[in-house]
Amino acid sequence: MPVITFQPSGKSIDAKAGSNLLEAARKAGVEIIAPCGGKGTCGKCIVRISSGNVESNSLGILNADELADGYVLACKTKINGTPVTVEVPEQIGRKDGKFTSAGEDTGLIREELFPHNWQYNPLAVKWCVSVAEAQLEDGLSDLDRLSRAIQRDWGKDEVVYSFEVIRKAADTIREDDGSVTVTMIREPGCSHIIGIEAGNKTEQHYGIAVDIGTTTVSIQMIYLPDGKVIGTQTDYNDQIACGLDVISRINYAAKAGNLEELRKRVLGTVNKLIAKLEAMHHVEPRDIYNAVISGNTTMIHLLLGLTPEYIRLEPYTPTILQAPYLTASEVGIDINPQSWVYLSPSVGSYVGGDITAGILCTGLATPSEELSLFIDIGTNGEIVIGNCDFIMTCACSAGPAFEGGGIKCGMRAALGAIEKVEINPDTAEAKYQTIGNVKPKGICGSGMISLLAKLLLSGWIDPAGKLDRARASEFIKVENRSASYIIVPAAESDTGEDIVISEVDFENIIRTKAAIYSACSLILKQVEMNFEDISNIYIAGGFGRFLDLEMSITIGLLPDLDRSKFKYIGNSSLTGTYMVLMSQEFREKQLDIAKRMTYIDLSSDPKYMDQYMSALFLPHTDKSLFPSVKV
Amino acid sequence: MPVITFQPSGKSIDAKAGSNLLEAARKAGVEIIAPCGGKGTCGKCIVRISSGNVESNSLGILNADELADGYVLACKTKINGTPVTVEVPEQIGRKDGKFTSAGEDTGLIREELFPHNWQYNPLAVKWCVSVAEAQLEDGLSDLDRLSRAIQRDWGKDEVVYSFEVIRKAADTIREDDGSVTVTMIREPGCSHIIGIEAGNKTEQHYGIAVDIGTTTVSIQMIYLPDGKVIGTQTDYNDQIACGLDVISRINYAAKAGNLEELRKRVLGTVNKLIAKLEAMHHVEPRDIYNAVISGNTTMIHLLLGLTPEYIRLEPYTPTILQAPYLTASEVGIDINPQSWVYLSPSVGSYVGGDITAGILCTGLATPSEELSLFIDIGTNGEIVIGNCDFIMTCACSAGPAFEGGGIKCGMRAALGAIEKVEINPDTAEAKYQTIGNVKPKGICGSGMISLLAKLLLSGWIDPAGKLDRARASEFIKVENRSASYIIVPAAESDTGEDIVISEVDFENIIRTKAAIYSACSLILKQVEMNFEDISNIYIAGGFGRFLDLEMSITIGLLPDLDRSKFKYIGNSSLTGTYMVLMSQEFREKQLDIAKRMTYIDLSSDPKYMDQYMSALFLPHTDKSLFPSVKV
Repeated sequence: MPVITFQPSGKSIDAKAGSNLLEAARKAGVEIIAPCGGKGTCGKCIVRISSGNVESNSLGILNADELADGYVLACKTKINGTPVTVEVPEQIGRKDGKFTSAGEDTGLIREELFPHNWQYNPLAVKWCVSVAEAQLEDGLSDLDRLSRAIQRDWGKDEVVYSFEVIRKAADTIREDDGSVTVTMIREPGCSHIIGIEAGNKTEQHYGIAVDIGTTTVSIQMIYLPDGKVIGTQTDYNDQIACGLDVISRINYAAKAGNLEELRKRVLGTVNKLIAKLEAMHHVEPRDIYNAVISGNTTMIHLLLGLTPEYIRLEPYTPTILQAPYLTASEVGIDINPQSWVYLSPSVGSYVGGDITAGILCTGLATPSEELSLFIDIGTNGEIVIGNCDFIMTCACSAGPAFEGGGIKCGMRAALGAIEKVEINPDTAEAKYQTIGNVKPKGICGSGMISLLAKLLLSGWIDPAGKLDRARASEFIKVENRSASYIIVPAAESDTGEDIVISEVDFENIIRTKAAIYSACSLILKQVEMNFEDISNIYIAGGFGRFLDLEMSITIGLLPDLDRSKFKYIGNSSLTGTYMVLMSQEFREKQLDIAKRMTYIDLSSDPKYMDQYMSALFLPHTDKSLFPSVKV
Repeated sequence: MPVITFQPSGKSIDAKAGSNLLEAARKAGVEIIAPCGGKGTCGKCIVRISSGNVESNSLGILNADELADGYVLACKTKINGTPVTVEVPEQIGRKDGKFTSAGEDTGLIREELFPHNWQYNPLAVKWCVSVAEAQLEDGLSDLDRLSRAIQRDWGKDEVVYSFEVIRKAADTIREDDGSVTVTMIREPGCSHIIGIEAGNKTEQHYGIAVDIGTTTVSIQMIYLPDGKVIGTQTDYNDQIACGLDVISRINYAAKAGNLEELRKRVLGTVNKLIAKLEAMHHVEPRDIYNAVISGNTTMIHLLLGLTPEYIRLEPYTPTILQAPYLTASEVGIDINPQSWVYLSPSVGSYVGGDITAGILCTGLATPSEELSLFIDIGTNGEIVIGNCDFIMTCACSAGPAFEGGGIKCGMRAALGAIEKVEINPDTAEAKYQTIGNVKPKGICGSGMISLLAKLLLSGWIDPAGKLDRARASEFIKVENRSASYIIVPAAESDTGEDIVISEVDFENIIRTKAAIYSACSLILKQVEMNFEDISNIYIAGGFGRFLDLEMSITIGLLPDLDRSKFKYIGNSSLTGTYMVLMSQEFREKQLDIAKRMTYIDLSSDPKYMDQYMSALFLPHTDKSLFPSVKV
């Protein structure tokens, strides 16, 4: 087979005669952008054949001079059986090899799962075209001429315009001698033009990936020309005031006017975070033409103002699993009002788009025979197990403890949160580490896990989560029947008050970890497997930079398995949302995953309560399940 | 060939073995509704074979009992070579044979051009379906189940929901045990659901046909279950305050804020007329889910708020010729906000959707070798000439005189308008007839034509439109250099003032008729033909119930040809708009007509001014063109 060498990288590959040059480049690990998907219409995959011969059918886009100089469209070129050297010109976004290296969570995801340059195909594309001048004879309207210019580059698909674009078209086309940038969404057979600007505005192009959790909302802003995440903002969902979990929100929504209140509250949170990102990164709302939102099914219903009632009532029926494209102005998101908003597809009432997005960050997205377990620890815990043959999923109500909810000094993983703790076995005094190494403000999920485990290992709490009242310690206070533990005395804390955790808080945390662990056990039972059968365990959740695996096993949140099987992937919903925003390939993969997932309703399984009750100890009632935990 | 007899009508036809029963029925003149176009999905074309044999493939929609009783879907049934008797059940809208017999103008249109029952396929269809109850096992959302119910009746096309429908779906589906009425727009491969109501609401289904003229706006309200026009309302376009013709409106729009003012003014007129029709016929705005609007290109630009400037400037380029579907709320029309608004396609800056709609009422819509001439006399005069081989069109600025604009006592064809006049040759006294036989309020276009012709024939005006000052008449007043003619003395008039027409008014009317006649002559010259080559002349315009052909020829508005060639078709734009609203077939025909039309710019023809100047006499400078007019 002839050797194809790509310059300047020097990468080479053996390729069969007759094979496609763009394909060969991809196989060689050389990234060439082809937004049109290899149709020969966008002209982006231009390369130069500096030695050797190829068969090319690059007419139309390239002119005679370019062809004479050896330039071809890689997508329209076949290797003909002789060695070839190919020069790949510098392309936008090619510099770093990968689209994303920034962003707080992305480092946690396996690199091979991330979109490569050649997968770059965001929801809405900006494209600069030159519209021909109007002629007396041709009888073409302004939009006819614009459509022809677009079809020249993108093929003969129908071009459909939004009303706003129609209204601006005449003046915009004439403002810069026919040079206009259109923003378009490409669907099979049809390009929807949702924006029009005079001149070349392709560099002013941003997108947002939004993860709406029951407790926490996170948003990433992405600069689309190179796919970089330029900022991430997280805050509590303002709906918390109306209930801590999805069931209480649904109950709240039943009263007249409350559904609208819930809709406005979550929109308020989302728009506040967008405004922050815009201000920090000097981005104009009108330049944000891409938005993907993931959330559990209830959160999406509330965001859209859909009656959530039937999610809660048997047979647990959502109004929609997959929403159509909606505009930002319809949804109420403060970006370009014409921007389409894509919502990650749900699987059922209790497995939402946050999970189909999150799965994209795991081995479940790359079909393999290896069994993978995905655990998303949020206010709802969702568990997914599967491989190339099947994907099963279930949900449990974990509660918001690990996000700081319902815990007296709890907070989310933000500046000043205690994320790691050591306990002096003799005095019970805590040594702690905070996010940002500043004065402590409270304790976040990873801190709680660390604290609970260390208190257990040092004997200051028992497996039921009760503090040792027998031994004297200035850090343990007993009032009435309940005891509390002082993590940080008032003098050291940022708040000027003790940072305290009570036995009630411990119970709360234990209930959360028990819900997760028992759901994992039960879904395995349902597929007649054991923890040992699993090759990869992906842990997702808003714990911040890290989750202490050893301590998570110590408290019985995670099963006691070979540590190398575990991968902490952070906020995988947000990362998956980013991937969906960036690439049509991931949108299709996500839809396929959603279609293949089977939901199991654990609440109808009589064994669930047994499993849950047994897990209400540290690490577990059945100590043999945790051989490596020495308590 | 076997004889197929249809009952109860007794109509019969010879049909070939193998031919389709629905087709045979149509050929026999028996109307069977088939909204799905014969796909076998809607189940509307059910008939019973009472004797004889047929080959039927009606499975799916009909149950076993029905099949055993001889019921078949006509669209899925073939005649197999034996005589057959077919019973056609009573169907909604079938009663009258034709969909429309009411409506003030429709009687003027050739019946064979009108939509028959089997062409009944309005823009938006209301359909009642029964949605299956939610099941725990099936994992279907509310909309999944609704889509399945729709697909059961209409085939497997994709079903897409508007956001409003999504928001209402959950509660509406449960309100009446799963019985819901959806309003849908069917496009190839896709049904758009724009409305959802609990229960069977198919009888609450209305549409509006809107004709927006530069001077006059007319609206018909249609009851869709039987296609009847239940009311028509006409009024002046409120934009008149900003200029009498399209050029002055375009000039007015150039100033900041004025385009929005023009948009609001025409919307105000349209919405006022809709509100009147709603009040008169007890129709709720939410029940109006169909709207088709026709107008000249400038009127449509102003309605949509599109910069009209480039229509006026060479090379006369509109922003759009064919607008996409827009929603009523986007356009600002006060009907169901979710209703799609369809805009008749334009041909160019000076030939709009009013003309492509109007052509539907003429022989040009039914391909024939006979040459037809279509003259639409409005503020802009538009002329179309053609046959099955070609369609040419041109426009001229006629001015609003015939609609009452710019004429002192002019008014549109409404209650109290003088529509016909006789002149006493000796005294010059007028005998007149008014619309509604009430006291006269003013004079409308048909009255002006009658008046001008009769004054000319009786010698009271000369061919230049000057009143005879030499003969004494109490009905002629001379002030300074100008003379006026009193049609109705103050005592007899509804206004309490003289109804008067001045020489300046005569000049105005003569300019209008000259523009029309010279445009007709010139377009014929351009295609190298004569008036004699034309077989059919269709005259359209808002003249009311009738236009006096003889008098129109007498003043030289229309050519002096065999009277039997002329057909007055009234407001053909409005009638064509109704046809487009009622039938997909006419929408396609209209698009085809628009595509086939070639626009000729008369203003660039140096002969135009000569032709126009020669026509500024009654009937014409060249008397030999009007041999039958004895002046």
